[in-house]
Amino acid sequence: MQIVPDGGVTAPLGFEAAASACGLKSSGAPDLALVVSQRDCSGAGVFTRNQLPAAPVTLDRETLQSHSDRYRAVVTNSGVANACTGPAGLEAAREMQRLTAKALNCDPDQVLVLSTGVIGVQLDVAKLEVGIGQSVANLSKRNGSAAAEAIMTTDTRTKQVALSVELPGGTVTIGGMAKGSGMIHPDMATMLAVLTTDAKVGAPVLQRLLRSAVDRSFNRISVDGDTSTNDSVLILTNGASGVDVKDEESVARFSEALDKVCLTLAHAIVRDGEGATKFLTLSVVGAPDEEAAVRVAKTIATSPLVKTALAGGDPNWGRVLAAAGRAGLELDPGRLALWIGNERDGELQLVQAGEVADWEEPEAAAILAEPEITMRLDLGLGEASATVWTCDLTHEYVSINAEYRT
Amino acid sequence: MQIVPDGGVTAPLGFEAAASACGLKSSGAPDLALVVSQRDCSGAGVFTRNQLPAAPVTLDRETLQSHSDRYRAVVTNSGVANACTGPAGLEAAREMQRLTAKALNCDPDQVLVLSTGVIGVQLDVAKLEVGIGQSVANLSKRNGSAAAEAIMTTDTRTKQVALSVELPGGTVTIGGMAKGSGMIHPDMATMLAVLTTDAKVGAPVLQRLLRSAVDRSFNRISVDGDTSTNDSVLILTNGASGVDVKDEESVARFSEALDKVCLTLAHAIVRDGEGATKFLTLSVVGAPDEEAAVRVAKTIATSPLVKTALAGGDPNWGRVLAAAGRAGLELDPGRLALWIGNERDGELQLVQAGEVADWEEPEAAAILAEPEITMRLDLGLGEASATVWTCDLTHEYVSINAEYRT
Repeated sequence: MQIVPDGGVTAPLGFEAAASACGLKSSGAPDLALVVSQRDCSGAGVFTRNQLPAAPVTLDRETLQSHSDRYRAVVTNSGVANACTGPAGLEAAREMQRLTAKALNCDPDQVLVLSTGVIGVQLDVAKLEVGIGQSVANLSKRNGSAAAEAIMTTDTRTKQVALSVELPGGTVTIGGMAKGSGMIHPDMATMLAVLTTDAKVGAPVLQRLLRSAVDRSFNRISVDGDTSTNDSVLILTNGASGVDVKDEESVARFSEALDKVCLTLAHAIVRDGEGATKFLTLSVVGAPDEEAAVRVAKTIATSPLVKTALAGGDPNWGRVLAAAGRAGLELDPGRLALWIGNERDGELQLVQAGEVADWEEPEAAAILAEPEITMRLDLGLGEASATVWTCDLTHEYVSINAEYRT
Repeated sequence: MQIVPDGGVTAPLGFEAAASACGLKSSGAPDLALVVSQRDCSGAGVFTRNQLPAAPVTLDRETLQSHSDRYRAVVTNSGVANACTGPAGLEAAREMQRLTAKALNCDPDQVLVLSTGVIGVQLDVAKLEVGIGQSVANLSKRNGSAAAEAIMTTDTRTKQVALSVELPGGTVTIGGMAKGSGMIHPDMATMLAVLTTDAKVGAPVLQRLLRSAVDRSFNRISVDGDTSTNDSVLILTNGASGVDVKDEESVARFSEALDKVCLTLAHAIVRDGEGATKFLTLSVVGAPDEEAAVRVAKTIATSPLVKTALAGGDPNWGRVLAAAGRAGLELDPGRLALWIGNERDGELQLVQAGEVADWEEPEAAAILAEPEITMRLDLGLGEASATVWTCDLTHEYVSINAEYRT
């Protein structure tokens, strides 16, 4: 498995991208991204479980129901989420799909649609039409980064990656771009990802591999990673490499690479978390089963008191244990152990048998002063474990979110 | 039902209180509070559901198991939570109980114990002993406020109330004090309340009425109100009024007054929320059942994006709907309606049939500029409703919690 330098959605064979600024963002920043395959693709998607899905989510679910294996493009706008917009919003999403299809000279059901931005505002279709026209005229291998930039909202940097992987039948490449940085609860700030690959993968296998990759990446950054109105991960596979992912070994290796692409993008989202200054890798080990480990880890990772302590570089292990204690799992206090660490200093044990271990304040402070921190909680109850990733909660987060819309 | 001016735990007949500063708080502020009844009391308690209960919670559960109807005192220290302190912590809590009993010349199982403060630090029993001695020497009707002050941690003001209520058998008084201000998740900052009454109420009825009052007050301020390591609500009833709460009408009226005492204290906690500048009364109506209404209301009330929007005075209704959409209840977007309001301006409808209603930004901004705000979400699914109370999420909250321990 190899990282493609500066790679993104256009790294796999047969994909092009473009971006334009059509005025949906009042700042005038790019707000329309187009990813197009030169040949028909299989496609799969994983969407929010929110009960109020945005119009593009409803439309994509419908479009992917057709299992057409003829998908050609993903068109994404930023600035307006097209969520809570009623029947008019759904019609606007359809129009966005139709306009893109027309410009690409294909059928509407060959186009998938994504939106991110403010909830409750209707899309300006006339502006979109101009942007779509410009983007189609500018399609190029070189515009992967431009597309990754055009899907940003409160993100401060683009998030993209591409990996090439050797399969028995030859080399395939998987590329991807993502956006999202509302990191206290990623479920509430839209998280979008568009993945592309030149492997040939049948739709049922593709859907299974995508679901599995998303569950261990985007759904493990903070909590409820799949429940905003717009959250969507789409993948298009165009088979341009001529390599068929069918036999067991190919599926396994492709799956591993897809996991890695998703994890890289998910970590990039946490690192760009709104106001974030720390990146925390939190592992819960010694759990009776994986689901319990995930539950405890997510409860800790979303605790405002743990996240503010992290911002302050405060080794407040009591808040970590208190959060674990309310995760709904029966715990044995006398078996708990907790470590913090970083790459430079290694690990320091803060808690042993449920009580404070032997450590000095300056040691802990030195570890927490680094931007990348690990935390490991051993429940002492079994063999299962899980890892989640989160960031700290800072003044800057409050500023961004108290002022975002107005 | 009448409010007793400046009333608190000593307003009911036969109760005295005292406070002292014994050095558990490094600031030198009062950190020990004692509430004593001159005669034996029935007692009841509602405690945290956290799997790592603090030592005093474990001890009080044990003490209340005896159903002795001989309770005489509640001793509370602040500064140290005596949580995650292992067997030594439990022994310290027992010693705190024994020392108080000795100073009051009663049995240890007549004393209930509460602690609040930093997790993971052992209690200094020698300091406690001095404080308990001083407090017993200073017991007085006048020291209710002093006791309410001594249980504070990050609270900025005392929280106390007393109500007198006419029952068929005569007048009884219910008093109470509470502490707690870590309001993002009250479950993580300790919430303590001590209630007193001169009514005579048998232990089984008392336990039932207390549980019901707590469920509709302390457990409705933000989410999971009962799951920190230390959260406790205790009540002592000494019967000094000579009024027995036994017949249906007396139980109903007493219950109503107890609810009101708990609700007043719970609201005071929200109003003193860490860094809070806004008090939000959030009602979810039109729910299929009360549990569903509570679930949706708590999901909205704990959403960092809703709470930061509130801080910024931003009528970001999309965040409210998005939070409702991830509460795990099946919703019909087309039936949703949302209002905001305040006492001066009345209500303004922001959302109708799931889409933005007809309103202007300045109207909404004017409503949200007030310190006390209402929000009403109609799910359009049924007849059930629930109300919860919360506050906004501000820079100040982050400052307090990033710097609390160190």
